[in-house]
Amino acid sequence: MSLIVVGSVAFDAIETPFGKTDKILGGAGTFISITASYFEKNPKLVSVVGYDFPKEYIDILNQHSIITEGLQIKTDEKTFFWAGKYHTDMNIRDTLITELNSLGTFNPIVPDSYQNSDFLMLGNLSPVVQRKVIEQLKRKPKLIAMDTMNFWMNTAMDELLKTLSLVDVLIINDEEARQLSGEYFLPLAAEKIFKMGPKYLIIKKGEHGAMLFGPSDSLFDKTEVFAAPALPLSTVCDPTGAGDTFAGGFIGYLANCKEVSFEKMKTAVIVGSAMASFTVEGFGTTKIRELNQMNIFERIGQFVKLTHFETPQL
Amino acid sequence: MSLIVVGSVAFDAIETPFGKTDKILGGAGTFISITASYFEKNPKLVSVVGYDFPKEYIDILNQHSIITEGLQIKTDEKTFFWAGKYHTDMNIRDTLITELNSLGTFNPIVPDSYQNSDFLMLGNLSPVVQRKVIEQLKRKPKLIAMDTMNFWMNTAMDELLKTLSLVDVLIINDEEARQLSGEYFLPLAAEKIFKMGPKYLIIKKGEHGAMLFGPSDSLFDKTEVFAAPALPLSTVCDPTGAGDTFAGGFIGYLANCKEVSFEKMKTAVIVGSAMASFTVEGFGTTKIRELNQMNIFERIGQFVKLTHFETPQL
Repeated sequence: MSLIVVGSVAFDAIETPFGKTDKILGGAGTFISITASYFEKNPKLVSVVGYDFPKEYIDILNQHSIITEGLQIKTDEKTFFWAGKYHTDMNIRDTLITELNSLGTFNPIVPDSYQNSDFLMLGNLSPVVQRKVIEQLKRKPKLIAMDTMNFWMNTAMDELLKTLSLVDVLIINDEEARQLSGEYFLPLAAEKIFKMGPKYLIIKKGEHGAMLFGPSDSLFDKTEVFAAPALPLSTVCDPTGAGDTFAGGFIGYLANCKEVSFEKMKTAVIVGSAMASFTVEGFGTTKIRELNQMNIFERIGQFVKLTHFETPQL
Repeated sequence: MSLIVVGSVAFDAIETPFGKTDKILGGAGTFISITASYFEKNPKLVSVVGYDFPKEYIDILNQHSIITEGLQIKTDEKTFFWAGKYHTDMNIRDTLITELNSLGTFNPIVPDSYQNSDFLMLGNLSPVVQRKVIEQLKRKPKLIAMDTMNFWMNTAMDELLKTLSLVDVLIINDEEARQLSGEYFLPLAAEKIFKMGPKYLIIKKGEHGAMLFGPSDSLFDKTEVFAAPALPLSTVCDPTGAGDTFAGGFIGYLANCKEVSFEKMKTAVIVGSAMASFTVEGFGTTKIRELNQMNIFERIGQFVKLTHFETPQL
């Protein structure tokens, strides 16, 4: 099956308690498509960069089998640039610089060769841009998944709700789920969000793992829940891109499965969690770029061990 | 196998966004022993109450097969009383009243009939009192588990470390694990805490579940990790006693298993989590007092569904 990935391709400059980088390759579209490529060959990227974006970075994408026909290169603008600094508690970060540049005027164009794709992953972007991609597709994909953030809830809620009504899977963090729904308890938040359009909700909880809410495969009208832990890590070098990596692993695995079911989504959440555990081990895309099937297989095995228990005899 | 439970038996007055109680039955020893009784008959309680403690409350304990020979009744003092108020985010609570009363001068006495027990659960109490119980045992139990809290780290660290050096399992929350070890990342916190005495560490994370660190059953010197989620709840009526209930389910299940291994402990963590999910559904001990094997079996089944996934085919 084929997969379209929409999301920023960017320069990031990152400072964490473990070090500091210059401008390196970043952006949601980058993390998602590189990660997805390990499961579904030839993810089709829709994004934009500027004249300052090095060819070597595009080569990196292509080396991961990513199709960049939908990656626009603006000759009169620079590439989106973000700089941030993480605190000792790496759940907290300060944004030092945000230069939207070419992303600020991004008008996504879906190439003809991308039509008839079955899976669409909308990385965190303006909900207007996300919707423009959906509207260009001549056939509705089998599954549309979408990431977003509190920024769009605060500044573009109406547009966000319009886009939400068109997607199947929403991927957000716990704080955002509470803000979007106005409900504190997550099962209630899920019920409210389902009324906005999505059939499935994934709630990312960082070091506490992720949860999946969605319709049962067997019982119509019954909502199932799945909880995946995060891998307990002895250190986190740089959390940038972990959420995007999660989304990439999730959608890449599903696209390769060709099947949309709660059961497959559970496994996809584990795959996403495993992939995210690699990303945080290095700065930016460093770790996620150099994986092989064996690394991934072993890491998923750690999740099996981490969660498996014998059912008690009572 | 036999189980000794040490912990406060108290009056609690609780206010949450869902309601308010007068003085009701509470205390770590109460929650632990009632919960453990569903798995291991005749838990042996060591505690103290005052002249104002109603006989009906002792009847409740005895109806759950709890042996109260070690429950001292002080004729010149009142029962420990705690009053607290929870915020909308029920992870935050204000203590309104703490009257130590009989607990302030508690000198635990282990009855002869309690000797030769194989399991000992030390509920959160002064580490001096906890140690006095260990020192009265003529034969070292097969397993000693201990709960404690930041209060003792702040006020009695030396005594806490002495008691810690005698126990096998430490049960604390994530913030306390970080404080005790001085390490932010939990696997590193576990390694530091193992050097203080315990062989196993359980880290309670409230709505995010619990983690177990301990030695592999098969590979000497290798630390294993297990992560259990909490049940996603649509409401929490009153979190009081959830941690004690967890400890009660954990130790009760293990005592009944008669076997101490990482594999059995994983299941015991799930049992503890399942039992804690009942406690928060009502005020105080209301819910945990009225369970039967069927309720418990069904609830544990929910944890199996919540965590089970098909290993991905790559």
